[in-house]
Amino acid sequence: MKFVTFKTSQGNRLGLVDGSQVIDVNAAAPQVPSDLRAALRAGIDLVAVAKELMGKEAGHRVPLAGITYAPLIPEPGKTICLGLNYYDHAAEGGRDKPVYPWFFLRSSTSLLAHQETAILPKVSERFDYEAEVAVVIGKNTGKHVTQDQALSYVFGYSVFNDMSVRDYQKKTPQWTIGKNFDRTGGFGPVLVSADELPPGAEGLRIQSRLNGQVMQDANTKDMIWNVAETIALLTECMTLEPGDVLIMGTPAGVGQARNPPVWMKHGDKVEIEVENIGLLVNTIGAEG
Amino acid sequence: MKFVTFKTSQGNRLGLVDGSQVIDVNAAAPQVPSDLRAALRAGIDLVAVAKELMGKEAGHRVPLAGITYAPLIPEPGKTICLGLNYYDHAAEGGRDKPVYPWFFLRSSTSLLAHQETAILPKVSERFDYEAEVAVVIGKNTGKHVTQDQALSYVFGYSVFNDMSVRDYQKKTPQWTIGKNFDRTGGFGPVLVSADELPPGAEGLRIQSRLNGQVMQDANTKDMIWNVAETIALLTECMTLEPGDVLIMGTPAGVGQARNPPVWMKHGDKVEIEVENIGLLVNTIGAEG
Repeated sequence: MKFVTFKTSQGNRLGLVDGSQVIDVNAAAPQVPSDLRAALRAGIDLVAVAKELMGKEAGHRVPLAGITYAPLIPEPGKTICLGLNYYDHAAEGGRDKPVYPWFFLRSSTSLLAHQETAILPKVSERFDYEAEVAVVIGKNTGKHVTQDQALSYVFGYSVFNDMSVRDYQKKTPQWTIGKNFDRTGGFGPVLVSADELPPGAEGLRIQSRLNGQVMQDANTKDMIWNVAETIALLTECMTLEPGDVLIMGTPAGVGQARNPPVWMKHGDKVEIEVENIGLLVNTIGAEG
Repeated sequence: MKFVTFKTSQGNRLGLVDGSQVIDVNAAAPQVPSDLRAALRAGIDLVAVAKELMGKEAGHRVPLAGITYAPLIPEPGKTICLGLNYYDHAAEGGRDKPVYPWFFLRSSTSLLAHQETAILPKVSERFDYEAEVAVVIGKNTGKHVTQDQALSYVFGYSVFNDMSVRDYQKKTPQWTIGKNFDRTGGFGPVLVSADELPPGAEGLRIQSRLNGQVMQDANTKDMIWNVAETIALLTECMTLEPGDVLIMGTPAGVGQARNPPVWMKHGDKVEIEVENIGLLVNTIGAEG
């Protein structure tokens, strides 16, 4: 099943993609909260709801091509990102293979939706793309989860563009500030339930394209820490909750590692595509 | 005015401290949301509400000594921490004076309330305290805020214990994981409105005590970046929203810098006190 979050004059709605149409889940099944995180927290089995709606629901449909996307989860409880989770990307930055994921957090003010304009900030010209897989935690809360159990905590997968302001990222050893500029984290367009993908979303082609040119082209099998390992490591430390998001790191080919470096500019179009999950498109707009 | 968030069988309530009593703000002024962040987002002038209640309100009171605290803001939009914001603390860690704040984020699963038990994690014995001032952003949203305007965005100040799992903090250059263990960020007990304190909460004594022994003893005037400078720097990058929290860094005297190092153990009592703001007390309990 493929879910979207879309904007209406009554606020965000949860949608279910059915071919070229979107079923308005909140209209068809009013017991389901309109926010994906809230729906997962409420313990709702969204795949079961979706199966019922796909079979029976004739009304409450809008054309997929006509919706205005919101970030899939506009305000996750936490959005945890992995740095250097592909060895070729660590190497292009002159780094050794890491011995533990370089975790950092993103705030919700940094998120943006499919087809929204990402903000090239006033204070920097070093604006880079990063193709990543996003993992959304499902309705169960997890602490000290073993690798064997870990994937049962995943509701589904989406696409993320972890756009980075490189000079701010490198002002100090803490990357956080360069990863938290307003509207720099593209998230969407769809959330694909885990049952439709290989375990851990492994073995999928992942690409970024800038103005049509392929910049990153890799496979998710090359993640150093896969999704199950990541969940096991994180839950040694913290509780993962429904609607939390993990951003699984980027492969080689980022703009800063090129010679000469490539920085995104006003008017650029950046696409992130993960095989069988989706295509996330954003344009770049200068701030202010 | 001094606000608290306290737990009841009907969920969290916003309280206003009046001597030895707490006025239940939500009972006395039902238009005010029970969550501090929600109240600030709704644009409510909480100081004006408080002034009215302090003068008139006879009912809806409970004894301060009897309340069960919740984290002041259980789920901030973002909690932004400054590393190395006192030069003596940078120096005790063998570091130069930083040229930019070492920002990192805390998630809400890492927060805990006054008088709650902080969790000494299973996976580490290197659990340290850090006395800090917390800043809560008020009802106005800010981007590209100048230093001159910055303090007008602050609603008030509280106390924070940025408890840190040092071996995880240092597994990689990214400190985030060591700062985000469950229930390690003490926050409270009270939120003091800015009008009752010196601008930027400067010139206040700040202490930590472990089992009664003074471990850190400093003054907030020694912050490298004061509150106004921090808000100006942050809003070059991101929007600050109502209820966002800034954690202003810790002075010298942390456990890891001592010889021999001091680590918090099961049963320890840790106190953080900031002059004219409050005294935050937590005990340490081993996980599981």
